[in-house]
Amino acid sequence: MKKNAWVLPDQVADVLPRQARTLEVLRRGLLDVYRRHGYELVMPPLVEYTDALLDDADDDLDLRTVKWADAATGKTLAIRADMTPQVARIDAHLLNRSGVTRLCYFGSVFHARASGLLTSREPMHIGAELYGHQGLEADAEIQSLLLASLRFCQLPGLRLDVSHAQIVRALLARAPHLLDNQEAVYVALQAKDTAALKELTDGCDDEICTALLALVDLYGGVEVLERARVTLPSYPEITAALNELQALSTLDNSESVQFDLADLTGYDYHTGVMFTAYCTGMPNAIARGGRYDHIGQRFGRARPATGFSLDLREITELLPCAPAGKAISAPWTMDAALRAAVTELRAAGEVVIQVSEHQVHEEDAFVCDRELVLDAGQWVVRVR
Amino acid sequence: MKKNAWVLPDQVADVLPRQARTLEVLRRGLLDVYRRHGYELVMPPLVEYTDALLDDADDDLDLRTVKWADAATGKTLAIRADMTPQVARIDAHLLNRSGVTRLCYFGSVFHARASGLLTSREPMHIGAELYGHQGLEADAEIQSLLLASLRFCQLPGLRLDVSHAQIVRALLARAPHLLDNQEAVYVALQAKDTAALKELTDGCDDEICTALLALVDLYGGVEVLERARVTLPSYPEITAALNELQALSTLDNSESVQFDLADLTGYDYHTGVMFTAYCTGMPNAIARGGRYDHIGQRFGRARPATGFSLDLREITELLPCAPAGKAISAPWTMDAALRAAVTELRAAGEVVIQVSEHQVHEEDAFVCDRELVLDAGQWVVRVR
Repeated sequence: MKKNAWVLPDQVADVLPRQARTLEVLRRGLLDVYRRHGYELVMPPLVEYTDALLDDADDDLDLRTVKWADAATGKTLAIRADMTPQVARIDAHLLNRSGVTRLCYFGSVFHARASGLLTSREPMHIGAELYGHQGLEADAEIQSLLLASLRFCQLPGLRLDVSHAQIVRALLARAPHLLDNQEAVYVALQAKDTAALKELTDGCDDEICTALLALVDLYGGVEVLERARVTLPSYPEITAALNELQALSTLDNSESVQFDLADLTGYDYHTGVMFTAYCTGMPNAIARGGRYDHIGQRFGRARPATGFSLDLREITELLPCAPAGKAISAPWTMDAALRAAVTELRAAGEVVIQVSEHQVHEEDAFVCDRELVLDAGQWVVRVR
Repeated sequence: MKKNAWVLPDQVADVLPRQARTLEVLRRGLLDVYRRHGYELVMPPLVEYTDALLDDADDDLDLRTVKWADAATGKTLAIRADMTPQVARIDAHLLNRSGVTRLCYFGSVFHARASGLLTSREPMHIGAELYGHQGLEADAEIQSLLLASLRFCQLPGLRLDVSHAQIVRALLARAPHLLDNQEAVYVALQAKDTAALKELTDGCDDEICTALLALVDLYGGVEVLERARVTLPSYPEITAALNELQALSTLDNSESVQFDLADLTGYDYHTGVMFTAYCTGMPNAIARGGRYDHIGQRFGRARPATGFSLDLREITELLPCAPAGKAISAPWTMDAALRAAVTELRAAGEVVIQVSEHQVHEEDAFVCDRELVLDAGQWVVRVR
């Protein structure tokens, strides 16, 4: 026996029966939702060449990716830290279709270091991606599929913030002053830190400066879009972006959809409408998505693309454990008539657990509310 | 664009839509079968400390395990190359029950080198494990669950070979001559290589020598057990083992269950009844299982244990691809009445795929045999 051989690394954990049941129910339900929308399931590998998994530009993903030299080829292999590039690779090269492709996936990814103190190093990502259509119909479909996913999970206090990557981009394109400080501007916007923004935009064109500061308050229901039209300069890109958001706002008139024009996490790869979902009990976003039209580029085929992903491990931890399933207990012998009775009950969908007389039944995922007993030579089910 | 960034390492592959569908249907169906038998689903992590994943004794698994120094702790981490030790750890420490525990699992494992020329480096294991019961009822349950699994997959030319680890062990225990050559004896038995066996047993006690040579022919239907009683010496362990096999032979009188007393792959960790399954199209075993009562030992809690695992990736490759699903095509606009009609059809379980007028529909996982059309102001489904 090795000392403490059963200890797991920090931020690595098993999913035990009651939580695994919840996770499995969500996994199946969500994949079924995606299927009913025409999304085809793909299963990319756990491990690939580092070049395929990582874009040169993405330092953050690079730091989170475990790599090693492959004994067989000497090339560098890595465990996927994100599945989105893998699915884009499948669209770009394996399927290689000219029309629209809809793909969905579920799988574990692994991080060399966790993204937060309480975050798992092995998120379980589930998501959907739509390739090959630039039109707003695609953004609308992804928005409603993301909302359908979150509602299926019955997360408490659900909220979807919608934003657009082209608004800030249009402002920054006209502010050569800020060229070297773009990342700082995005960080300040995200934090709604007006003091930092004022400092950064010092010396900028007044129009740009006022607009960037205004973004911090452009947060709330659909009325935000009207305020934005008044407050922001009417550059063609900004007008187009606001028109897109306006059109999307008509799709779902529930209060759970809001706009936050300063919420721009992922601005470096997003190119259009962006989604961020929040719920009660989680300070960080529970799901992210949006348009990122250049994703296939490094595989030689930049197609329009939009999609989202959720971490089912994290979502499962926010939800109550699955209730114990109802089961029938039965004696545990090799008697043929008993075995026939058990087989018949299982074929009818019942859970039948065979238990020795002298053994305690301890499964916590099942409650045996009935038992199979021999009554006048016949095996019958009796309520306990 | 990186040159050939889309190329995957040898023996690493995506599961594309049509095969992924087959795999998913099998995955769900098998986990449902296990659940109806009272097996609780667990999801152990992809990555653990090497000490937890590897037994000092298992050189073969060691060679197939990818390891690296964890940036966070400096300790050695590894990707699981097998899930069985993880599930044993969960039984031994996390659940820590005194009674019977039934667990099942599904997940990818990764191998530093593939176990064969045509074998994937990322098998997808699904399996069931039964802990805490030494009685033959447990072996019987695992045998019938393994058969139920294989039949559910509808593998062609299915055959289950049953063997017992204690027969050869009883012979070798009485042959001090062979102490240093045990592995060679097992290899020769497995290969049914009588010439090698004769050479190895040269100088051995006649009874042992004759018995080891006889094992090579003890292969076939239940009559093998009668022949074994006549041919093999009646050591108590051998009689007990044959009695166990005899009792199991009554459970399933189909021709797919056979006995092969020389088939002893995994003899080093098995301690009782062993199962090996074969099917048409695969020279190697398609599934293995059996009793291995010491598995929990290195976690400080050796419990009786028996179970099996299958590689769903390999099984899927043997099966025909899933037929394309039936779907309804619909126009792709943001019209509210259209969206309501689409939502209603999906809620009724239909797959509805929205397609732009000018775009080709290329999904190969679906065939649109119907379409949603506007007829006198109403959206109706029409056969294509």
